[in-house]
Amino acid sequence: MKLDSSGLQVLSREECFALLAAAPIGRIVFTDRALPAVQPVNFHLDGQTIVIRTVTGSKLAAATRHAVVAFEADEFDTELRTGWSVTAVGKAREVTDPAEIDRLAALPLTTWAPGRRDHFIVVAAEQLSGRRIPAERSTPAGAGVRA
Amino acid sequence: MKLDSSGLQVLSREECFALLAAAPIGRIVFTDRALPAVQPVNFHLDGQTIVIRTVTGSKLAAATRHAVVAFEADEFDTELRTGWSVTAVGKAREVTDPAEIDRLAALPLTTWAPGRRDHFIVVAAEQLSGRRIPAERSTPAGAGVRA
Repeated sequence: MKLDSSGLQVLSREECFALLAAAPIGRIVFTDRALPAVQPVNFHLDGQTIVIRTVTGSKLAAATRHAVVAFEADEFDTELRTGWSVTAVGKAREVTDPAEIDRLAALPLTTWAPGRRDHFIVVAAEQLSGRRIPAERSTPAGAGVRA
Repeated sequence: MKLDSSGLQVLSREECFALLAAAPIGRIVFTDRALPAVQPVNFHLDGQTIVIRTVTGSKLAAATRHAVVAFEADEFDTELRTGWSVTAVGKAREVTDPAEIDRLAALPLTTWAPGRRDHFIVVAAEQLSGRRIPAERSTPAGAGVRA
């Protein structure tokens, strides 16, 4: 098990993709009028590409056009105080080709938010990193608390 | 119930703070070497300020110094396809005053990640926004799927 400098387990590229493939929700991180912005979205992992569907003309669509964005998914267990997080960084691209839209529309990507979401944004996972809080730790659970 | 243009329920400032106060984990969103970055962290809401503890010399501490950051917390129910998200935007400040460090160290802020985390970053929630996916919807659950 490889650990980073802060004691978190470093996930392999394969583990990162496997976790992303099973997650129903992630967060797209971008810049909106020079300020950092973040928005949870349903997504589908299509090979190594993150597919998001949104409403036409959304703030998200405008802000991510041709921008490099981060995309994060995670899952934490409050009782066990463990969990994982995967972040992909890559260029966002709005899909305009009708044939590609038809293909993406057939993916098993359901959005929980209401409204018709026929606009697709794809993010290529160019950089990928993942961490897991080790479940078995050499330090007791409360060790993070300053004595 | 106030809805935004995409049909999500707009949460009041009071609701946002109440949800943040009960959440054990959030995500700090910042810029790291000109790229968007995001990192999950344990936090404590101290009045209207988000308190994060990290390791001295961390990438997070360096990248957020005097920077405007976003901080997001959320909770989703996969079965009910509902959930909420709250985002605060404000300036991050590293705490260097020993008296303030002592006060923050006494807060009920436990970190799940291993290692000694004695460095504090605080984010004033200058801008606050929250959304909830309405539990009862006028559209059926699958309506987001393109026909």
